[in-house]
Amino acid sequence: MYRSHNCGELRESHINQKVTLSGWVHKTRDKGFVAWVDLRDRYGITQLVFDEDRTSSKLLEQARSLGREFVVQVNGEVIQRASKNPNIPTGNIEVLVEEVIVLNESKTPPFTIEDETDGGEDIRMKYRYLDIRRNPVKENLIFRSKVAIEVRKYLSEEGFIEVETPVLIKSTPEGARDFVVPSRMNEGQFYALPQSPQTFKQLLMVGGLDKYFQIVKCFRDEDLRADRQPEFTQIDCEMAFVEQEDILNAFEGLTKHLLKEIKGVDIESFPRITFDEAMKRFGNDKPDIRFGMEFGELNEVAQHKDFNVFNSAELVVGIAVPGGNSYTRKEIDKLTDWVKRPQVGALGMVYSRCNDDGSFKSSVDKFYDQEDLAKWADVTGAKAGDLICVLSGDQNKVRTQLSALRMELAERLGLRNPEEFAPLWVIDFPLLELDEETGHYHAMHHPFTSPKPGQLELLDSDPGAVRANAYDLVLNGNEIGGGSIRIHDKEIQSTMFKHLGFTPEEAKAQFGFLMDAFQYGAPPHGGIAFGLDRLVAILGGQETIRDFIAFPKNNSGRDVMIDAPAPIDKEQLKELNLKLDI
Amino acid sequence: MYRSHNCGELRESHINQKVTLSGWVHKTRDKGFVAWVDLRDRYGITQLVFDEDRTSSKLLEQARSLGREFVVQVNGEVIQRASKNPNIPTGNIEVLVEEVIVLNESKTPPFTIEDETDGGEDIRMKYRYLDIRRNPVKENLIFRSKVAIEVRKYLSEEGFIEVETPVLIKSTPEGARDFVVPSRMNEGQFYALPQSPQTFKQLLMVGGLDKYFQIVKCFRDEDLRADRQPEFTQIDCEMAFVEQEDILNAFEGLTKHLLKEIKGVDIESFPRITFDEAMKRFGNDKPDIRFGMEFGELNEVAQHKDFNVFNSAELVVGIAVPGGNSYTRKEIDKLTDWVKRPQVGALGMVYSRCNDDGSFKSSVDKFYDQEDLAKWADVTGAKAGDLICVLSGDQNKVRTQLSALRMELAERLGLRNPEEFAPLWVIDFPLLELDEETGHYHAMHHPFTSPKPGQLELLDSDPGAVRANAYDLVLNGNEIGGGSIRIHDKEIQSTMFKHLGFTPEEAKAQFGFLMDAFQYGAPPHGGIAFGLDRLVAILGGQETIRDFIAFPKNNSGRDVMIDAPAPIDKEQLKELNLKLDI
Repeated sequence: MYRSHNCGELRESHINQKVTLSGWVHKTRDKGFVAWVDLRDRYGITQLVFDEDRTSSKLLEQARSLGREFVVQVNGEVIQRASKNPNIPTGNIEVLVEEVIVLNESKTPPFTIEDETDGGEDIRMKYRYLDIRRNPVKENLIFRSKVAIEVRKYLSEEGFIEVETPVLIKSTPEGARDFVVPSRMNEGQFYALPQSPQTFKQLLMVGGLDKYFQIVKCFRDEDLRADRQPEFTQIDCEMAFVEQEDILNAFEGLTKHLLKEIKGVDIESFPRITFDEAMKRFGNDKPDIRFGMEFGELNEVAQHKDFNVFNSAELVVGIAVPGGNSYTRKEIDKLTDWVKRPQVGALGMVYSRCNDDGSFKSSVDKFYDQEDLAKWADVTGAKAGDLICVLSGDQNKVRTQLSALRMELAERLGLRNPEEFAPLWVIDFPLLELDEETGHYHAMHHPFTSPKPGQLELLDSDPGAVRANAYDLVLNGNEIGGGSIRIHDKEIQSTMFKHLGFTPEEAKAQFGFLMDAFQYGAPPHGGIAFGLDRLVAILGGQETIRDFIAFPKNNSGRDVMIDAPAPIDKEQLKELNLKLDI
Repeated sequence: MYRSHNCGELRESHINQKVTLSGWVHKTRDKGFVAWVDLRDRYGITQLVFDEDRTSSKLLEQARSLGREFVVQVNGEVIQRASKNPNIPTGNIEVLVEEVIVLNESKTPPFTIEDETDGGEDIRMKYRYLDIRRNPVKENLIFRSKVAIEVRKYLSEEGFIEVETPVLIKSTPEGARDFVVPSRMNEGQFYALPQSPQTFKQLLMVGGLDKYFQIVKCFRDEDLRADRQPEFTQIDCEMAFVEQEDILNAFEGLTKHLLKEIKGVDIESFPRITFDEAMKRFGNDKPDIRFGMEFGELNEVAQHKDFNVFNSAELVVGIAVPGGNSYTRKEIDKLTDWVKRPQVGALGMVYSRCNDDGSFKSSVDKFYDQEDLAKWADVTGAKAGDLICVLSGDQNKVRTQLSALRMELAERLGLRNPEEFAPLWVIDFPLLELDEETGHYHAMHHPFTSPKPGQLELLDSDPGAVRANAYDLVLNGNEIGGGSIRIHDKEIQSTMFKHLGFTPEEAKAQFGFLMDAFQYGAPPHGGIAFGLDRLVAILGGQETIRDFIAFPKNNSGRDVMIDAPAPIDKEQLKELNLKLDI
């Protein structure tokens, strides 16, 4: 037996007990005739004391030979601690060591195993097993498992059945982003790894399972933006005999449960706004509503003056920055530079200071008088002391630019409090999205999303106007879940495939099984999928998903610890009937 | 709203209530002026009644137009049922229908949606979504999810943390059986899908996570025997600071919990026998101990007579078949033919009848007198009325053959009761196994398994004799779990790799990260993995894992429903820098 107690367990009630502990040598302190060792395991830290008076000098000698991160087992007696440490639960006691067994030695770790480490991202990833010993990483992993437990608990109690869907499936039309897996038994053929279990969960609904969920790995072979992973985890859900309202209620319930159980936050009900409204008010389909700074559209009050920049713009839109009037001219210039960076892409920024005396001072005083600027303040909701920032241009672009500015300023103003939670539903998403490059429409959510009732006929005349029974759950400016009511009618599904540019043959080859299934009594159904990685990160008050993944990959899709991906043997390739083509 | 209640919910207490139900048309009966429809969903069946007197003849007409598996929504009133059906929970009521809405029509399904269907395996797999509508399949999936819930509940309460390990990893030396995944971003390089998260769970122990588990998909690209799947699910577990005893106790606890919660079966404690003993007593390292028929080794009492077949055999071994003396000569001949089939491979079978009067009648009376045969009965534990079956030959082969016979007879005698549960631990497995073809030893469990203390030196002199801290959990003749105490010392791990035929370079290339990790304070650790598919099947009283998998693949590794694997586009291959080599 390696231990009678763990390192976070001993209290004053254990005093005089003989105990056995095992763990890592976290720190040692040596005062000549006495030495202390902090022994650490997952559960905490216990102070060991070695004392040549009370035990033996040989033991003290041994204590001195223990290096950082050595793994040791000690036998000893729990005693009262002279100078108590109120910062740790075991701080009132220590263990007077009678025997030490070194279970394993350790080289000096490449970075310190402390909450704040001296190791950079790269080295911590290479030695992730050491990184995990640090409290913040360990706590993140434990936190993640706790969220998963609560998800499963809630959904199970609501009658959802967890069903495992296959990982080795078939390549789909979004195939370019599929990871594929050559089959040895089926020459020249490939499986694909699922980007989501979408069709399988729909088939489970056709199969009458009624309420399905799964916490499941999904895969996407795409160029990785800063915070994406080639493999990611979804909470995947589907329900039969439901309308959008049923789904929103069911998963608002789940999200409330998580906020309550995990964060102790009670939220009465989640606001719902349409996609169009979200774009209009926040320039963003995943608005952060922890703070205001809503968009004020200024076309009416700012156009038809002599300022051609605004006159020629499709949209003139501004936000009121709380307290922004305190910015110096230099700071405002820097802000202008910020919006002109290529990542944001604005051509310039107009501002108006809202002075404490009710007057305004704008960068375009030549064109706008005090009365005009008062209207700007009215539309943007600016108060004395605020700064109104105005962008103009093409509607879609300018909204995106102003949204970036809004988020940046909120960040600087400390309005994005990670311990505040502001969920909302964004509904009525467009069914189709125009690919500017190809001029083709593709499904904004996926090809199985149902158009809103009565909008099917618009598909021909005005495809961009068709709205879908599709919804996103947004938390603190992040999409944490998205879903839709699905098409369950074979004819409508065929029409959709046609509009998405599939020939009937392609549709049949790819989704014949789903179309077949729809012939045998498919019920109305819909669902949602949550991104667990992001959900956990946001609930954990952070935004980097990598910190909540045990063994993440880097931006090149590499696991630098195990050094994967890697070349494979020629022989293995041959068995798979493949040749490199480099 | 598609329904106010589900189809399994209504009782007499609902009588006179207006309800809305949705579901599938299971059956219709027409008596002219009145028709009944059984409406089915996941939760049960509710009888609908259409009556031209009480409602309208138009409605009755509509009812007649409903085909099997149509999806309908009905509004109506719960009424007392005239002829009650005590076989279903809703049998005391029916719903007098006032409105029918057909939500979706259905073609006639290719097989009947009944507990006993007329559909063969192939057609059921092709239309798995219809198969899932059948109670036995649906119940199996629900049963599986229930087992998973209990596993998670128990392990969480015992302090295990569920951690997701990566699916895109690195190819291992058992590489030939790895599925590989070409990386688009890393030209000419491949990920592999894990055969198990073995190294990652060990790294989590090095990382101090202390107690890990995961219910996780694993992958093996091998020729599929009847009841294997290319993707399968493991309950994967690992603990730090443990000896074998700790692991056995922890997971005996889990298994007891499952037997108790899922099957209502209480088992005090699981027997433990060594691998050697299992082979000696049952000829099998996963003995079914629901019944006796233990092996009796007869060398001492059957050799050194004039029967050369026995004299020249390494092992003469028999079992007593309860009541087997009632077999006719013809039946015994058939049994002899059975053991001589190539699948079993015995050269012949000797028998001795145990007559009711205490006398014996054997097939080798020429060589053995009554006194000899009495000894056989003594050694095999045969009683009057039994039949002793004896095989002889090479020890390993003859044990396997007699084990096959034992299992076959137990099956025929009805001794393998699927609702009886007899778990046991088999311990002290050999560390290495001789590959007869290559003459090389390979790891019986895996290269990370720790030899028993003090046996390391045997590795050179007598590798086959080295026993490992490795154990299997066996239930009803099936291995449901297996694991080991791992090596946590870098030097010993190097030695192991050397003995398994790795050059130091190969070991470093494949497992450098693990060897590195062992330099930084690896704790003693060990673990176990359960095959969830099989565990669920056995708990469910069945032996075919396919019946407990939502979308299984066939023996060629194909999903016949979605028709995968399948060829992929040339363009996609090109992006992956691959060419077919067929």
